[in-house]
Amino acid sequence: MSELQDLKEAVLLANRLLPHHRLVTLTWGNVSGVLRSQGMMVIKPSGVDYDALTVDDMVVVDLDGHRVEGDRNPSSDTPTHLVLYRHFSTLGGICHTHSPWATSWAQAGLAIPPLGTTHADHFYGAVPCTRRLSPDEIQGAYERETGKVIVETLGNPDPLAVPAVLVHGHGPFTWGRDPLEAVHHAVILEEVAKMAYHTWMLNPHLASVPRSLLDRHYYRKHGPNAYYGQPPEAS
Amino acid sequence: MSELQDLKEAVLLANRLLPHHRLVTLTWGNVSGVLRSQGMMVIKPSGVDYDALTVDDMVVVDLDGHRVEGDRNPSSDTPTHLVLYRHFSTLGGICHTHSPWATSWAQAGLAIPPLGTTHADHFYGAVPCTRRLSPDEIQGAYERETGKVIVETLGNPDPLAVPAVLVHGHGPFTWGRDPLEAVHHAVILEEVAKMAYHTWMLNPHLASVPRSLLDRHYYRKHGPNAYYGQPPEAS
Amino acid sequence: MSELQDLKEAVLLANRLLPHHRLVTLTWGNVSGVLRSQGMMVIKPSGVDYDALTVDDMVVVDLDGHRVEGDRNPSSDTPTHLVLYRHFSTLGGICHTHSPWATSWAQAGLAIPPLGTTHADHFYGAVPCTRRLSPDEIQGAYERETGKVIVETLGNPDPLAVPAVLVHGHGPFTWGRDPLEAVHHAVILEEVAKMAYHTWMLNPHLASVPRSLLDRHYYRKHGPNAYYGQPPEAS
Amino acid sequence: MSELQDLKEAVLLANRLLPHHRLVTLTWGNVSGVLRSQGMMVIKPSGVDYDALTVDDMVVVDLDGHRVEGDRNPSSDTPTHLVLYRHFSTLGGICHTHSPWATSWAQAGLAIPPLGTTHADHFYGAVPCTRRLSPDEIQGAYERETGKVIVETLGNPDPLAVPAVLVHGHGPFTWGRDPLEAVHHAVILEEVAKMAYHTWMLNPHLASVPRSLLDRHYYRKHGPNAYYGQPPEAS
Repeated sequence: MSELQDLKEAVLLANRLLPHHRLVTLTWGNVSGVLRSQGMMVIKPSGVDYDALTVDDMVVVDLDGHRVEGDRNPSSDTPTHLVLYRHFSTLGGICHTHSPWATSWAQAGLAIPPLGTTHADHFYGAVPCTRRLSPDEIQGAYERETGKVIVETLGNPDPLAVPAVLVHGHGPFTWGRDPLEAVHHAVILEEVAKMAYHTWMLNPHLASVPRSLLDRHYYRKHGPNAYYGQPPEAS
Repeated sequence: MSELQDLKEAVLLANRLLPHHRLVTLTWGNVSGVLRSQGMMVIKPSGVDYDALTVDDMVVVDLDGHRVEGDRNPSSDTPTHLVLYRHFSTLGGICHTHSPWATSWAQAGLAIPPLGTTHADHFYGAVPCTRRLSPDEIQGAYERETGKVIVETLGNPDPLAVPAVLVHGHGPFTWGRDPLEAVHHAVILEEVAKMAYHTWMLNPHLASVPRSLLDRHYYRKHGPNAYYGQPPEAS
Repeated sequence: MSELQDLKEAVLLANRLLPHHRLVTLTWGNVSGVLRSQGMMVIKPSGVDYDALTVDDMVVVDLDGHRVEGDRNPSSDTPTHLVLYRHFSTLGGICHTHSPWATSWAQAGLAIPPLGTTHADHFYGAVPCTRRLSPDEIQGAYERETGKVIVETLGNPDPLAVPAVLVHGHGPFTWGRDPLEAVHHAVILEEVAKMAYHTWMLNPHLASVPRSLLDRHYYRKHGPNAYYGQPPEAS
Repeated sequence: MSELQDLKEAVLLANRLLPHHRLVTLTWGNVSGVLRSQGMMVIKPSGVDYDALTVDDMVVVDLDGHRVEGDRNPSSDTPTHLVLYRHFSTLGGICHTHSPWATSWAQAGLAIPPLGTTHADHFYGAVPCTRRLSPDEIQGAYERETGKVIVETLGNPDPLAVPAVLVHGHGPFTWGRDPLEAVHHAVILEEVAKMAYHTWMLNPHLASVPRSLLDRHYYRKHGPNAYYGQPPEAS
């Protein structure tokens, strides 16, 4: 049970970072983590203030969405998270917010183009925006359909190469190898979305940076030839 | 008298939340609450700093606007609040601010269209903007006329379905079942107004989200089939 | 000497409010006050951090600009302040900042039109913008010429009716009956400038609110029939 | 060794000022300083949080980029800094950030025109933007090529007259006579970039202020006839 307890603490911490990074108003955001060896997901309870959260409030569900631990209702976005974890085996954490700059792009129905090296350092191409859901999808299993349209939008690349998506008319989802990395990508996405907005206002519909720059910046930070940061510490 | 004292404390707290949520500059905002069983309204005194307010500064007026308790002048917007309480029997609290994003839409004379789920979660349709007041209305009982043009703009739906309005060339009023909920809706309105602005700058005059999405998000949080948040606690 | 000491303390406090209200970056702003009975002006020293200021740093000059007290150089804008005090006898305090929203309008060379009641509550008409200074004026007694172009722009109305001006390509000056009121008007101007900007982005070149609204809001707060705020306290 | 220790402490302090002035998100910025008498540069380690930095984390490299002191990898931008120190002998400190307003201009590929006196007080003309790097330059010694395109852009004027540049599609570099002055110029650049953006939105593609105003404001603060601030203190 200790691994699950560790994950609950990581998910608690990750949720608490959302107001710290000014990514959420009121309770508009949630972070989850997955423990694949046990087939369990841990997620924030629905509609509870970040300040009031304790580790025991974290809700544990299995990958079919049945509640296994916790007295609280899980986030209403739980089915979306589950679709992504089931489809993409490399995901360890997912973050959903209504952070204002990323949400403005999502509401506009526009992908965020890579307009500079800040973007390229973290996202290896545009942050895509899904199509609108159909009325049938909205009236059906809405949160599950939201997950499915994300999967449809990403196609089948490595989801960690561009660890973010905008859901049309809704807002961003980001992810990573663990819950903290999912929040880290949410912070970066918000900053990138803000700068892309102002760049387009100055130079409307400017094209993306060239592929060579995307390659250079992305591989400075990722993969075997990365040279940004410090080497992993030996233990 | 205890119910009235409770309301005075709730109105004090609600007013103090205005600078906390960065909704006001200087003293530009006020919150009131109503105690219908006694026919009394409690409201902030006019032009007093939020930090300096005490519960005894709260002004009690009857629903005709006669001061019943308190040494202070009530907010100059008192007649507007009273028109709304008299017309809409479900209102328990009203909040008026000059919060910058909502006020910018009000000054532009534009309703805030529902451009995403953040809006739809809380406002079941556009946040309307009143017509301009006529010179006669401005020169007459101006604050009362402001209330009347709000009533005219809303027509006769449930005012809690879209608990906000923009007064043309002035700013927002929001309301709720109690003073805290009125402030809560002011926080949400400001965030929604900010994101709608940036969305329209990216995608000018984008149309509203479809009715199916409005329905889905509004009824996730409201009504008998709501499934957002936690069930009410048994006592 | 006690009146002068009081003024030095008021000017110190007023200068310290500039960073508190986020009106200044680094040392880009100054406040002065005048003691007409002694023909003295007190002003911030040039280029000193607000946090480091003490009452003894305040510089006293006579109305011709000769230093009478203090070891420091007075603000380089001193000649501008002096022109305004000499021309307008009702001014008791002047504030100059490079606050970003007001400065953006000044750089654009545009008056801030009255687009709503927030403006009308405090400024009885547009906040004017001066013409550009000529090369001769710039190369001559530049700071004095800045004061003269403000006087030229205002014409001869009551300067307290619209207690603010934008200097073309430079930034705002505000004033009041004392140094604190000058800062108060700088706070309001910045908020009004921000909202006017966003209003024009939503509704380009929207016209001013009608005269009847300007009258109503201005006289709610000013003159014998004012009814905003609390009555002056008896002493 | 004491001069080098002093520089390490100055570089530490300068790096810590970056989050204080809200110029950086996460670890997106670095400051360096140079000790020309010893042929050494001190720079922030790569990818380390500002809060966690200690003086012993500072990395010392010689002007060819060989690490002389410190266990950490130096900032990945080290080769850019070195090109600038080698080319411009008056530079004592360099600062690189992804501050959002300056970066938005850099992403737009636009020089920041001098639109007001805030700009002219500190930058004696437009803040230039480099050309895009070619694919060959990007695929080659990328960080060194970044330094070279800055040198190419500046030509051979005094680099302290306009102590800032925008790298196309990347972000700003600023510099000064020491590390603190480099950060000081980064603060100013960000504020100037923000105001220039809003000025152009109000008045698209407004031309620069006239040369006479640039001269007047720049020489108020710089050179033998400067009259802003306090005289240097005798010791």
